Amino acid sequence: MNINRDSYFSDRALGMKRSVIRELLKLTAKPGIISFAGGLPAPATFPIDHVRSAFGKVMDEEAHHALQYGPTEGDIRLREDLVRIMAREGIEVTSDHILVTTASQQGLDLVGKVFFNPGDTCITGSPTYLGGLQAFKSYQGVPVGVELDDEGMIPEKLEETIAGLEAEGRAPKFIYIIPDFQNPAGVTIPNARRKRILEIASKGDYLIIEDTPYRQLRYSGEHQTTFQSMAPDMVLSLYTFSKILLPGFRLGWACGPHWLVDRMVMAKQAVDLCTPPFNQALTHWMLVNGALEEGLIETIALYDRRRRLMLEGLDREVSDIPGIHYTRPEGGLFLWLTLPEGMSADDLFQKAVDKNVAYVPGSAFYPNNDYVRSMRLNFSYANEEQIVEGVKRLAGVIKGNM
Amino acid sequence: MNINRDSYFSDRALGMKRSVIRELLKLTAKPGIISFAGGLPAPATFPIDHVRSAFGKVMDEEAHHALQYGPTEGDIRLREDLVRIMAREGIEVTSDHILVTTASQQGLDLVGKVFFNPGDTCITGSPTYLGGLQAFKSYQGVPVGVELDDEGMIPEKLEETIAGLEAEGRAPKFIYIIPDFQNPAGVTIPNARRKRILEIASKGDYLIIEDTPYRQLRYSGEHQTTFQSMAPDMVLSLYTFSKILLPGFRLGWACGPHWLVDRMVMAKQAVDLCTPPFNQALTHWMLVNGALEEGLIETIALYDRRRRLMLEGLDREVSDIPGIHYTRPEGGLFLWLTLPEGMSADDLFQKAVDKNVAYVPGSAFYPNNDYVRSMRLNFSYANEEQIVEGVKRLAGVIKGNM
Repeated sequence: MNINRDSYFSDRALGMKRSVIRELLKLTAKPGIISFAGGLPAPATFPIDHVRSAFGKVMDEEAHHALQYGPTEGDIRLREDLVRIMAREGIEVTSDHILVTTASQQGLDLVGKVFFNPGDTCITGSPTYLGGLQAFKSYQGVPVGVELDDEGMIPEKLEETIAGLEAEGRAPKFIYIIPDFQNPAGVTIPNARRKRILEIASKGDYLIIEDTPYRQLRYSGEHQTTFQSMAPDMVLSLYTFSKILLPGFRLGWACGPHWLVDRMVMAKQAVDLCTPPFNQALTHWMLVNGALEEGLIETIALYDRRRRLMLEGLDREVSDIPGIHYTRPEGGLFLWLTLPEGMSADDLFQKAVDKNVAYVPGSAFYPNNDYVRSMRLNFSYANEEQIVEGVKRLAGVIKGNM
Repeated sequence: MNINRDSYFSDRALGMKRSVIRELLKLTAKPGIISFAGGLPAPATFPIDHVRSAFGKVMDEEAHHALQYGPTEGDIRLREDLVRIMAREGIEVTSDHILVTTASQQGLDLVGKVFFNPGDTCITGSPTYLGGLQAFKSYQGVPVGVELDDEGMIPEKLEETIAGLEAEGRAPKFIYIIPDFQNPAGVTIPNARRKRILEIASKGDYLIIEDTPYRQLRYSGEHQTTFQSMAPDMVLSLYTFSKILLPGFRLGWACGPHWLVDRMVMAKQAVDLCTPPFNQALTHWMLVNGALEEGLIETIALYDRRRRLMLEGLDREVSDIPGIHYTRPEGGLFLWLTLPEGMSADDLFQKAVDKNVAYVPGSAFYPNNDYVRSMRLNFSYANEEQIVEGVKRLAGVIKGNM
C-alpha cells in the first residue's frame, strides 16, 4: 500500500493529539529527577491486605461468577454499595441512577459520546482537567473555557460566556465542573458560589457534569455540598476509586438522573460490554470490609503532610518573589503556581528538568492553550524529603531565570 | 426541568439501541429453561488455580506496580507475551504493533472511533457479530452486509457490493470479517477464499478488520491462515482472552500496522487511559505459567463434546424436516440453524421460551434486520444433558409450528 494513510481516518481521529502530560512524563523519567508532574497516588496508600482478603473471598465463594461476563450497568452489589456511599454525600438515589464505569475517564468518554454532535460546545474551567478536554474533543465537542479564581469558576464570567454562546446560536450542551480541589488549580468552589452557578445553569436548563475524583481527600476546611445533592435532576456526577482506593482496577461510577444514566448504559454496551466483573467483585468485598474508610484516614494524613511541606517550602523559598502566586488547596493532589508577569512555565520547563525537577506547564490545561504563566505541582507522589528538595530546586530555577 | 430530554443528546446517542440479545437474555432467565441463547464460555473452563498462583506472585512481588496506573499501550511484558502468541500464528510483529484493549469490544469501539465520519460505510457479513454492528453504528457508520454461505463471506457478492458502493461514491472504510467459526453462523473461510477476498480488498486498498475471538477453539478440520499473516500492511486483527482464558478480566488486544495501532492508542488515552494494569499483570503471569496452552486442551475437549451432542441431536431430531439447514462448525461457540421457507425464528421465539428452550433469533445479526428464518444456537454454556434435552424441545417446537 502506497497511499495517503490519513484518508482512512475519521475527522475526529485526525484531530486527536497525544496527551501532553503523558509525553512530558517520558522526559521526566530520568534518574535523580524529582517529579511534581504526574498525578499518581502514593503506592503506600494501596490497601494491599484488603485486596488479598477480598481475593480470598471471591475465589473461594464466587469465582465462576466473578470471572464470567457481567451486566453493563455493573455488579448490582457494588451499585448498592455506591448507593450507600452517595447517601453519605446527601445524595438519595437507587441503583438505577448508578452506572459502574471503567474509571471516570470512561465516564467522560460516555458523556462526550451521548452529548456531542460535531461542533457542539460545552463550558469548562480554564484551566481544567486535560482528560476531560481530550474526551470531549475526541467527539468533536468544542470546550469553551471560563476563568477561575481562588474560589473556582467565576459566576459572572460563566454568565457572560453562556450569553455570548447563546447569542451566536452555540448554546453549550453542558457545564463541566470539578468543584472540589480542582485539577489542575487545586481550588474549591464554596457553597454560595455553587448556588449561584446552579442558578445560572437552570436559567438555560443546562446540565452540569460534576467531576469529583478527589472529593473525599479533604485535609482542612469544611466539606462543601455537591452540585448533585442540590439539583439531582440536572447534575451527572463522575466518581472514581483511583485516588481514594487504588487506580489499577480502573473502577469508577457515574451517578445522575435515570434517563441520562440509561442512555450511557446503552452507549457502554457497544464500548466494552461491561467493566471487569472480577475487579467489581473484589471492590465490593473491600468496601464491605471497610477498606475505603480505613484507607482514607491514612491517605488523608499522608497527603496532608505532603501538602503542608510543599506549601511551607514555597512560603520559604518563593513567596518573596513579586508577582508570584500559588493556590492553597484544602484537599486533592495538586496546587497551581503562577509565575510573575512576563515569565513562561513552558519556557522554564526544560531548564527545570535540567536541574532535576519537573512539573506540568499549565498551558496543557487550557481549552485554547492560551495561558503560559502557570504550572501544576503534584504533592501526592513524591516523598517528604523529595518535596522539600524539589521545591528548593524549583525556586532556584525560577529565581535564576527572572 | 420540564423540557424535551432528547434535545440534550447527540444524533449518535439518539440512534442507539439496546442489544437485542441482552434484552432477550432477561426473558430467558426463568427456572427450568435450557438456553442456547447466550454466548458465555463454560465456567468449568476458567483456570482458577492459575488465577490464584498469578495473584500470589503479583501481590508478593509487584503489588505497587500492578495497582497503579499503567501505560495506554498496555503492560510491556504482556505485549511481549502477545508478540509470541502472534508468532505462533505466523504473524511476525514487535510490541509496537500491539495494543492491549479492554477486551475486543473496545477494539471494535476504537475501530469505529478512528474510522467513521457520519454516513461512512463499511462491509460486514450478513449476518455478523451484533457487537460489531453496535460499535460501528454508535459512530454513525453504516454497515453494509455481504451474504455468507457455508464457507463464509461470498467473494462474488463482496465484489458486487463494493462496486455498487463505489459507484455511489460511498466506498467502504474497511471490510469487517470474522474468518474463523463466525459469530453467529459458525462458518469458517477456507484459505483459497481468504486469498480471493484479499485480492478484492487490495484492488481498492481497503483495510480488513479481522475479528477472531474463537480462532484457538478448533475442534476438527485444519487451521486456516490468518488474513493478517497474508497481508500484514492491510489487516488489523482483534483478539480477546474472553473465550480462551476467561471473560471477567475484560482483556483483549489489537494487532496491526503501527500507523493504525498508534492512532488507536491516541484514541484510547481519552477513552479509559489504560486497561486495568492489575488484570494485565495477572494475565502476564498466567501466560508465563502456561495457563493458556493447558486450559485450551480441556476447553477444546469440552466444547467439542458439546458441539457433537448438539449436531447429533439435530441430525436425529430435525434433519428430516424438508428445507431445514444448519451449519457444522469446526470450532467456536455457535451454530446457525435455518428454518424451512415460510417459517420465522422471530415468531417461534416466544413459543420456544414457553416450552423452556431459548435461542437468539437470527434477525438480530443482520445489518438491516432483514432476514428472519435463522437462529443462533450456542453449545458452550449448557451442559451435556441440557444440550440433548434442549435440542429435543426445540425440535418439538419447530415441528409443532410447521
